[in-house]
Amino acid sequence: METLDAIRKRCSLKGHLSKRPVEREKVDIILEAARAAPSARNLQPWRFVVVRDEQTIDELASIAFTEPNRVVREGAVVIFICAREEDDVTREGKPYYLFDAGLAVENLLLAATDLGLVTHPILSFDETEARRILEIPGEYRVVLATPLSYPAEPSYDEAASARLNERIRKDLREITFYEKWGK
Amino acid sequence: METLDAIRKRCSLKGHLSKRPVEREKVDIILEAARAAPSARNLQPWRFVVVRDEQTIDELASIAFTEPNRVVREGAVVIFICAREEDDVTREGKPYYLFDAGLAVENLLLAATDLGLVTHPILSFDETEARRILEIPGEYRVVLATPLSYPAEPSYDEAASARLNERIRKDLREITFYEKWGK
Repeated sequence: METLDAIRKRCSLKGHLSKRPVEREKVDIILEAARAAPSARNLQPWRFVVVRDEQTIDELASIAFTEPNRVVREGAVVIFICAREEDDVTREGKPYYLFDAGLAVENLLLAATDLGLVTHPILSFDETEARRILEIPGEYRVVLATPLSYPAEPSYDEAASARLNERIRKDLREITFYEKWGK
Repeated sequence: METLDAIRKRCSLKGHLSKRPVEREKVDIILEAARAAPSARNLQPWRFVVVRDEQTIDELASIAFTEPNRVVREGAVVIFICAREEDDVTREGKPYYLFDAGLAVENLLLAATDLGLVTHPILSFDETEARRILEIPGEYRVVLATPLSYPAEPSYDEAASARLNERIRKDLREITFYEKWGK
């Protein structure tokens, strides 16, 4: 898929997850994409926990998530993105481990879209419980979780079309200035 | 360009900037790509200041940057990405304005790559001076700056090949676990 199409078509589709198994090769392509992201001083603070085990996904959904995010239960795979502040630069109160995690996660989401897979980034979960279930060391923060699945519909485009039609974004003129702020 | 190619080819190329003007249409495509990123509760905390004025770029390079990042002076355009913590979610000490800015910036970098333009994300600058010169309100944080230029070489691939050959990333096995941390 063309880059700009993947960027336009990527959307959050938790209502469209199927349990069809996602091939390990596809998961690897997606993680390779995440890994290729830039980071402050190339520190690469990101870590990924890929959960495919049905029982673990169920446990996570029941304990670490609440409705409507318990829908992660319907994901064939759920990926957790973790990072440590101490593994990255913090400048004037800006901890760049979060920024760098965002760079990697966007690559992950776009690669999934490119492969026709659906995702849905979720930041609302019980981090302590997620850490306990997945045995994530205490100093790592769990930044995001996303299911990764084939769409319930025959194609990505069919899964995404309604959602993309109702997409709301601020006007470019509201978020962009030229030469100086406010212009 | 195919999505996975853009992800693989995107790299930081501050040594390869030309002053050839970048068309406004291309800047718009790149900002549209950034705008399409997801964000917590769709809050879209990102703001962009696009600097094309030669004198402003010179002033910024001299005052807000130090070597080797003064090379932004060679950019045809320099884009500053800003965001406010209060415009986004903060969960258990994780300010998601930085994460969401990362999602948008990766789209921006990939769209530039797709169009054959070079970028180089820089987080090391005097934020107070950048804010003063660009008249950015005090509560907005300047998260990142990147020059945006046509490559000095005839094509993006020629500009990027040496850099991509020396790319260093952690092994996928070092950053990925299956089912539980450490596995």
